[in-house]
Amino acid sequence: MSAALDPEKLLMDYVRFPSVSTDPAFKAGLDGAREFACGVLAGLGFRVEVVPTALHPIILAERGGDPNWPHVIIYGHYDVQPPDPLDKWTTPAFEPVVRGRRLYARGAADNKGPQAVQFGALARVLGENPDLPLRITFLIEGEEEIGSPSFPEFLKKYRDRLREANLVILSDTGSPSPEQIVITTGLRGLTGLEVTVTGPRTDLHSGIHGGALLNPIQAVCELCAGLHAPDGRVNIPGFYDDVREPAQWERDELAKYPRTLENYKEFLGVTNFYTAPGYSALEAVRFGPTLDFNGIGGGYQGEGSKTVIPSKAFAKITMRLVPDQKAEVIRDLLEKTLRHRCPSGVTLEFGVKEGGSPYAVVPPGRPNTPGDQSPVLARAFASADAAITECFGRKPLYLREGGSVPIIGQIKQSTGLDSLMIGLFTPEDNLHAPDESFSLDILEKGVATYAKLLKGLAAG
Amino acid sequence: MSAALDPEKLLMDYVRFPSVSTDPAFKAGLDGAREFACGVLAGLGFRVEVVPTALHPIILAERGGDPNWPHVIIYGHYDVQPPDPLDKWTTPAFEPVVRGRRLYARGAADNKGPQAVQFGALARVLGENPDLPLRITFLIEGEEEIGSPSFPEFLKKYRDRLREANLVILSDTGSPSPEQIVITTGLRGLTGLEVTVTGPRTDLHSGIHGGALLNPIQAVCELCAGLHAPDGRVNIPGFYDDVREPAQWERDELAKYPRTLENYKEFLGVTNFYTAPGYSALEAVRFGPTLDFNGIGGGYQGEGSKTVIPSKAFAKITMRLVPDQKAEVIRDLLEKTLRHRCPSGVTLEFGVKEGGSPYAVVPPGRPNTPGDQSPVLARAFASADAAITECFGRKPLYLREGGSVPIIGQIKQSTGLDSLMIGLFTPEDNLHAPDESFSLDILEKGVATYAKLLKGLAAG
Repeated sequence: MSAALDPEKLLMDYVRFPSVSTDPAFKAGLDGAREFACGVLAGLGFRVEVVPTALHPIILAERGGDPNWPHVIIYGHYDVQPPDPLDKWTTPAFEPVVRGRRLYARGAADNKGPQAVQFGALARVLGENPDLPLRITFLIEGEEEIGSPSFPEFLKKYRDRLREANLVILSDTGSPSPEQIVITTGLRGLTGLEVTVTGPRTDLHSGIHGGALLNPIQAVCELCAGLHAPDGRVNIPGFYDDVREPAQWERDELAKYPRTLENYKEFLGVTNFYTAPGYSALEAVRFGPTLDFNGIGGGYQGEGSKTVIPSKAFAKITMRLVPDQKAEVIRDLLEKTLRHRCPSGVTLEFGVKEGGSPYAVVPPGRPNTPGDQSPVLARAFASADAAITECFGRKPLYLREGGSVPIIGQIKQSTGLDSLMIGLFTPEDNLHAPDESFSLDILEKGVATYAKLLKGLAAG
Repeated sequence: MSAALDPEKLLMDYVRFPSVSTDPAFKAGLDGAREFACGVLAGLGFRVEVVPTALHPIILAERGGDPNWPHVIIYGHYDVQPPDPLDKWTTPAFEPVVRGRRLYARGAADNKGPQAVQFGALARVLGENPDLPLRITFLIEGEEEIGSPSFPEFLKKYRDRLREANLVILSDTGSPSPEQIVITTGLRGLTGLEVTVTGPRTDLHSGIHGGALLNPIQAVCELCAGLHAPDGRVNIPGFYDDVREPAQWERDELAKYPRTLENYKEFLGVTNFYTAPGYSALEAVRFGPTLDFNGIGGGYQGEGSKTVIPSKAFAKITMRLVPDQKAEVIRDLLEKTLRHRCPSGVTLEFGVKEGGSPYAVVPPGRPNTPGDQSPVLARAFASADAAITECFGRKPLYLREGGSVPIIGQIKQSTGLDSLMIGLFTPEDNLHAPDESFSLDILEKGVATYAKLLKGLAAG
C-alpha cells in the first residue's frame, strides 16, 4: 500500500494546511498538518504518539526492531512561516500549484517538501524490504519557526528514549542548486527579543508638544542604530568573545561553492554587500554571527500623514550565533546593552524570544574530526556521500549554513547525538518569503538518495 | 430663525461626519461635513460658494455690505485627523457624547468646536442686529490636517478678493485652561517628507542571508538617529540659520503661563524632558524648531516573530519651523541631508509632504510693533482683549504657539493680511489623539466673547 505513495501528491495535500505557528489564528491549520503527518506515518507502519506541549504538540513515531540494529531519528517540522505579505504571492500561499517543475506554496520547501522526500523514500524502501534492519524514530515538531520554545521541556522528559538512537537525520538546510547538494556541518544559533519603547502617556500633537520630549521613534532608532559599529560589527560588548573561527578545510570547501559574489549580489538585488570585517559575503552568512531587525513599528502607518508623537514604538530583533556563542548569554548581553543605553525620558519593556545555541559537526576524516565519533555516524556520512554522488551526479559539499534549527544544538547538548543534515532546498525556493516553492526534480532525486541512505544505514 | 441656533447641538451634528482628509476612504464624511457647514452659513444669511480644488473643496461664504465697513475673514477647517488608534477611544470617535462638561468626538476641538462658537456668536449678533455694519467672509478649508496642499493654488486665484479684507480671525490654537485664554501671536511652520529605504529585491530569510547585506530597517534607523545631535539639536546643516530668537516681551509673557514645568512633565507622562539647548520645555514648544518622527514601519509587525530581512522600511518625518525659517528651504535641506548620508547598499525614495512657513504677528503696543499696522487690526486686538477679559474673567496672554496653520503664513505673504488668533482649545482636549473633546464652558464663553468682538469690530 505505502509503496504506492506519491510524494508530489502527498506534498500537495500537506501544504494545504496553513500551519503558521506564530499566530494563534492558525490553530486549525496546525492541527490539520499534524494529523495529516500522523496519518502518513501510521500508513507507513509506525507507532505514532502525539506528545502534548505548552503550545504545539510534537509527533513521535517509532519503527522498532532488534535492539542491535542501528537506530536513527528523522527530524522535521510541520509548522510554517506566516504567509504575509499576502499581496506579493502570484497564487495564494495555501493553494498549491505546480508551475514548470516547481510546486508553489508556503511550507513547500520549509519543511514539508523534505518530509515528503523522507516519507517517499521510506515507502519505497519498506515496500521493497519490509523487514529492513533499521530502527527509526520520527520526531516532527510544530514550533520550529518560532524558536521551538517547548522543545527543552520535551527533551528533559524524552532524553533517555532519544539517546538510545545513534544519530539524527534531517533535511531542513539548503544547497546552492539541484546540481550541487550540501551536507550541512553546522547551523547558526538563534536568539532575540522584542523591545518596546514608551515615552509620553498617550499619542501627542507634534505641533503643540513637539520640542519638549523625546519621541519614542527617535529613541528606538537610536537604540537600534547603536547596535552596529560603523565597520558593520555588532556593537554589543562581549558579543564576539566566544566566536570560534572556521577550520581551514571549511574555508576551502566553501571556495568550491558554485556561486560568485557577483551572482550573489544579483540574487539578493542589492548594489553592495554589508559584512563585518574578515568575511566575504558568502563566508559571513555561514561563519559569522549577526544581529538583524525583523520588524519595526510606531506611530502612524497609514496613507498620508498624521502629525503625531506616538506613545510607543517597537523593534523585533534576532541574532544568529556561531560556535561557541551561547544563546542565553548573548540574549542577556543584548538586553543589558539596551537597558544601559536607554536614553532618559523613555522606558523599555522586553518580550523575550526563545532560541537555540549554534551547532557544528565535523564529518569523518577531517583534520579536526573527534576521535570518539560513533561508527554509525561515520557510516551515515559515507552512505549519504555515496547516495548523493550517485543520484545528483556530483559529490556533496560539506558546509556550515546560516540558518538555525535550534533543537539540533539542544539534542547534541542533552543526548550527545550528532546530526546528518542533507540540504534539499535551494535559494530559488524563496524560504520565509512570498512565492515559496520546492523543486520537483529535487523531490524525485531526494527520494532516491534517502532510499539509498536508509538501505546503507541498515544493519549488514 | 438663526438666533435660535444652539451651538452645542450644532457641534454634536457637525462632528458626526468622519471628515478625515488624509484617507480617501473618508470622502463621504468630508462631503457631509462640508455640506453641513454650507447649510449653517446659508442659514445665517451668507452667500455660499464651494470652490473646487485638486483635492477637497474650500467653502467661501460672504456677508457683503457697504465697502466702507470693516471686513474680516473668519477661517476654519472642516477636516479632522484620523481617529486611530481606534481601540484607545472610550466611546467611538464619530459618535459624540457629553460626559461632564465636555463633548467627546474626533474634531470636537480641532476645529469644529471653535467653528460652532463662531456660528453661535454670529447667530446671536445678527439676531440682535441684522444690519450689523461689518463685512464677513468665511473661509473654511478641508485640507488643514494634511498641510493644505490645495491652498496655494486657491490663493493665487482668490488673492485679490481676499486682500479686500482687513484681517483674518480664527480659533485653531490653544489656551492653557478655560481660566486663561491666549491670543496667539505666532504659529510654527510645518514641512516634512516620507522616506522609504529599499534594500534587497524581496524579503529574505535572516538565517540564510543575514550577515551579507544591510538591513533596510537598520538603514532607516541610522538615518533617523542621525537627524539629532547628542545635545538634542536637529542635526541638519543649515537648519538653524534663519531662526529668529523671540523678543523679550514674549519670554516675559510666557513666564506668566499658568503651568509649571513639573505640571507639564506630569501632563505629558514623561520622566524627563528632551529639549534643544537654550529653551525650557515650555519655551521649546513655542520658540524652537523641531524634527519629529510621526511614523516608522518595516518588516514583520504581527504577533510573535518572523525571522525576515525586509525589502523595505519607511519613516514619516515632519518638522515644525519658527520665524524666519522657510518651509521649502528646510524640506530641501532634509532631503539633501538624507541623500548625502544614505549608506551604500540601499536606495531612498521620497514622498514629499506639503506644508507652510511659520507666521508671527506683533500685537499693538509692543516694543517691536511695526509702525504701519492697520487700524482695524489694532481695533480687533483691543476688542478681543476686552471681550476675553470680560467673558473669561482674566486678561489674555499673548503667546506664540507650537502648532501650525500653514495657510496663515501664506495669506500674510500673499495678501499682507495679519491674523487675530483666539485660543479656544486646551491641553485636556487631546487633539490628534484618542478621546478628543471640547469644553462646553469654553463653547459658551467663547460665543459671548466672539459676539462682543464682532460688535466691537463693526463700523461705529
